[in-house]
Amino acid sequence: MTKRLLVVGGVAAGASAAAKARRTNEDVEIVIYEKGPYVSYGNCGIPYYIGGEIPSRDDLFLVTEQRFWGRLRIDVRVNHEVTEIKPDQSTVQVAGPDGSFEDHYDRLILATGAVPLRPPIPGIDSRGIHTLWTIPDGDAILDMVKTLSKDDPVCVVGGGFIGLEIAENLHRRGFQITLVEKMDQVMPPLDREMAYFASEHMRSKGIRVILSDGVSSFEGRDGTVESVVLESGEEIAAALVVLSIGVRPETSLAEKAQLHIGPNNGVEVDSYMRTSDPHIYAAGDMVETNHCSGRCPVRIPLAGPANKQGRIAGHNAAADLHPEEPAKEAFRGVLGTSIVRVFDLTVAATGLNERAAAALDYAVQVSHTISGHHADYYPGAQDMIIKLIADANSGRLLGGQAVGFAGVDKRIDVLATALMADMTPYDLEQLDLAYAPPYSAAKDPIIVAGMVAANVMRGQYRLLTLDDLEDGLDGCQIIDVRRPDEFEQGHLPGAVNYPIDEFRSHIGALDDQKPILLYCAVGQRAYTAYRILQNHGFSNLYSLSGGYELWSGTLGDSGRSENG
Amino acid sequence: MTKRLLVVGGVAAGASAAAKARRTNEDVEIVIYEKGPYVSYGNCGIPYYIGGEIPSRDDLFLVTEQRFWGRLRIDVRVNHEVTEIKPDQSTVQVAGPDGSFEDHYDRLILATGAVPLRPPIPGIDSRGIHTLWTIPDGDAILDMVKTLSKDDPVCVVGGGFIGLEIAENLHRRGFQITLVEKMDQVMPPLDREMAYFASEHMRSKGIRVILSDGVSSFEGRDGTVESVVLESGEEIAAALVVLSIGVRPETSLAEKAQLHIGPNNGVEVDSYMRTSDPHIYAAGDMVETNHCSGRCPVRIPLAGPANKQGRIAGHNAAADLHPEEPAKEAFRGVLGTSIVRVFDLTVAATGLNERAAAALDYAVQVSHTISGHHADYYPGAQDMIIKLIADANSGRLLGGQAVGFAGVDKRIDVLATALMADMTPYDLEQLDLAYAPPYSAAKDPIIVAGMVAANVMRGQYRLLTLDDLEDGLDGCQIIDVRRPDEFEQGHLPGAVNYPIDEFRSHIGALDDQKPILLYCAVGQRAYTAYRILQNHGFSNLYSLSGGYELWSGTLGDSGRSENG
Repeated sequence: MTKRLLVVGGVAAGASAAAKARRTNEDVEIVIYEKGPYVSYGNCGIPYYIGGEIPSRDDLFLVTEQRFWGRLRIDVRVNHEVTEIKPDQSTVQVAGPDGSFEDHYDRLILATGAVPLRPPIPGIDSRGIHTLWTIPDGDAILDMVKTLSKDDPVCVVGGGFIGLEIAENLHRRGFQITLVEKMDQVMPPLDREMAYFASEHMRSKGIRVILSDGVSSFEGRDGTVESVVLESGEEIAAALVVLSIGVRPETSLAEKAQLHIGPNNGVEVDSYMRTSDPHIYAAGDMVETNHCSGRCPVRIPLAGPANKQGRIAGHNAAADLHPEEPAKEAFRGVLGTSIVRVFDLTVAATGLNERAAAALDYAVQVSHTISGHHADYYPGAQDMIIKLIADANSGRLLGGQAVGFAGVDKRIDVLATALMADMTPYDLEQLDLAYAPPYSAAKDPIIVAGMVAANVMRGQYRLLTLDDLEDGLDGCQIIDVRRPDEFEQGHLPGAVNYPIDEFRSHIGALDDQKPILLYCAVGQRAYTAYRILQNHGFSNLYSLSGGYELWSGTLGDSGRSENG
Repeated sequence: MTKRLLVVGGVAAGASAAAKARRTNEDVEIVIYEKGPYVSYGNCGIPYYIGGEIPSRDDLFLVTEQRFWGRLRIDVRVNHEVTEIKPDQSTVQVAGPDGSFEDHYDRLILATGAVPLRPPIPGIDSRGIHTLWTIPDGDAILDMVKTLSKDDPVCVVGGGFIGLEIAENLHRRGFQITLVEKMDQVMPPLDREMAYFASEHMRSKGIRVILSDGVSSFEGRDGTVESVVLESGEEIAAALVVLSIGVRPETSLAEKAQLHIGPNNGVEVDSYMRTSDPHIYAAGDMVETNHCSGRCPVRIPLAGPANKQGRIAGHNAAADLHPEEPAKEAFRGVLGTSIVRVFDLTVAATGLNERAAAALDYAVQVSHTISGHHADYYPGAQDMIIKLIADANSGRLLGGQAVGFAGVDKRIDVLATALMADMTPYDLEQLDLAYAPPYSAAKDPIIVAGMVAANVMRGQYRLLTLDDLEDGLDGCQIIDVRRPDEFEQGHLPGAVNYPIDEFRSHIGALDDQKPILLYCAVGQRAYTAYRILQNHGFSNLYSLSGGYELWSGTLGDSGRSENG
């Protein structure tokens, strides 16, 4: 009898799983049960569709039901919700438009994804408060948008990447946007000093960004939202609220079926994407997998991993049912690599951030470097900042973050590749990356980041971070080695200006009994000064990680004319 | 007595070496002897300066003599040529503007670079024939350019990256350009089918590209070139000739000093960049180092490696002279990663190409994949082609090539990183790369390339290349699985059209005793058809690597609407 493979959920992981299962096994029956009205769409594109950058709604649909059948002989049933799994009987209960029925499976793949959080805040059920996750969510927001006037106030609650994307896209439509975030930063995958560039950039474009403040209630009239009241007491007018404060894994079916749930509330799977029931696989936003640099279980709801997990679950489930038992494939894990465009700025992260690495008890080493995204002598070079997080004990890179106006996506992908290979800063500084003036520099920003991190790791260079500075610099000699005109435009409190090109003449004025903090615009001149002092026998030396540009939160071009 | 470190050559590797040496050792005297009139300039920018993209000549200078002294206490002597090294006496003979003198060294760093080839072709010494390597070369070409009129004929001899860059930049100035290349392709780091896109793109912009033809003589009047006569007999009018047929390492000093020369005519160095004389280091275009994926000695004259080698040579030489003997650093080697912009197209390579891998007797596996550079549903996605070269025995990636209109630099750098980590296609397909619609797709082109190469490596998928096709397809059933409208616009000779969405209905018409070649636009639909047939027991199957787009040499968007 023909074997039967059921897939529950048909958007990202589910669609991938079904397609891959068919390619592995032509003889198995494959059915996708999708609760919602659509399968296989690019939900990451919805904010851009709402903003009008993606002109047509049809563009969002990747594989139609017709193609699933015509090309892949996959039977897609939208508007069919699996309401129960009975593992003992290898059946599911399905509620469809024509009533409820039971279906048998030989293998089951769960890809029920995640659902946006909607906490029980007073007034949350008012009209005009929307989450953004599915096509119907996007349709509802766009319907609402069409009833509004330009300059109407819109409040986006939550500063993760969906919050940032929808804020930008609604701003594009002309609304007055306020973004409210409870943490003291946007973009939680990044550390605060890096995320700062994103929130400041949004502010510079006219979006009001409120940090460290949560929502206490939604107020309105006749059941329609009119304002958002914050924990601080401030009231933000809002004709539309988009709630993007995160998602929770949709595990209710799995839990009812007594599948094991992991420490992050996702379904536990082995590297073959198999749940605790050997006949049931799971993939996508609902599962926990291995964090490749953190080496711990993690649940990261992103499309890239969902796609890969889906394919592997699909292959393995279909291989189980194949008479020739093809070899199974194993999923290695995730880094949580993520990227968001904030107007013309790009903000990206991979691996562990500093907070996460510290929470996992790594001996965290961080470094910040700022370099032009291509050769400084070629027109249009723009500064980019890279943060590296490494384990000082093993040398292994744990994470990377990058912010800038061009070429950020390239550098974060190089870092993600380096993390997958367990590379160290010593590896990064030796990478042979492509250089021609329009694309990079002889010392690519990644090479520069690797050089600095490697110098720190060798014990030849000590950096202070902005967090260290907040702890105070009592008794520290703060030396600004920039040009006098740069110093005049702003400097650290208490700093003395010894420009690098006359630095040696000031050495006698320095007290080698007290700590010395050196800084310049981006760190390169400070490094030269550091080495000069080190060679003169000074040992109580520090350089400011990321220099004045990071401290002041403004990426410029001040580092460029000073290279060398 | 103060130790003395001399650096011979002050452009790329020499400038890096001197600067790094100073940072390692404040107490050593450092002198750069540079034969030419300038130090530390971005010679990779010269073509763009000639074309006017880099507006100011001053932009090309990175570190001035004044800064070398003010900041780094490095004594730069331009127009000083070292004419002899006497290793026994630890001295060099120097010819400067004020005569010749001897100088003593404790350590010497050779960074004499390379010089452009100028073979003894009849007429080669005519006025108007220029090579392009140094600032004076660029000045001379620009002086010449100013005497020409728009539409004057210019001949560029040599289709390496300098040839391509100068051809584009002179075309930008309005001249009629003919590019002549003796090989049957431009851009030798790439394989021919990939380089084809570059030469075709130049042609589409109005540059005449002549392949497989060499120069037999330069003809002219009164010692000024007027035409280039090719081996084929054709005569190309030329008011200016730029000769960019390669460079040779400048090793005459090293040879006279009896330093070991390697199999590629470069100076032999160990991983510390030390020559066969322990007091003499060398770096840059003149040395041979390890090819990281080929694992053989190689001489690759590129700025990125020169810079890294220079720093390592500088550190180690200065460390030798430091009382505390800091740890030496080792150079890992090169991949020859290179990239060139050809108008709006980008062409890039890293590691071994197919020819080089075969010459090293690897069991070469190649695959070509074509994918949009970002999510297909986001406006502006453009096809990019990636070629992977891997060792079928060990699985190790040996090289990668990429051509496309956007995002090529990112993918080649990811591949270069993967090569440095000895990754396999199985690693590539699991990379966790950054995805948001403006930057990438849930399946990045690198992931797609990894998936296909991994399927080949698993033995689940067999590809035919264009070279294989040239050997003939006698008795092969050629099946085009594209839509009928695509088929009508052009197809392989002898192909039959079984569109993928009705493919299963044609299976009965196929003869499983004869080989079957499947293809579509980019390979994705062909893969689906392949798996269907494989599941039906067919085993004599092939798919066309790179599909119809590679075969026809036209990157399009035909693959995109067919994803899934």
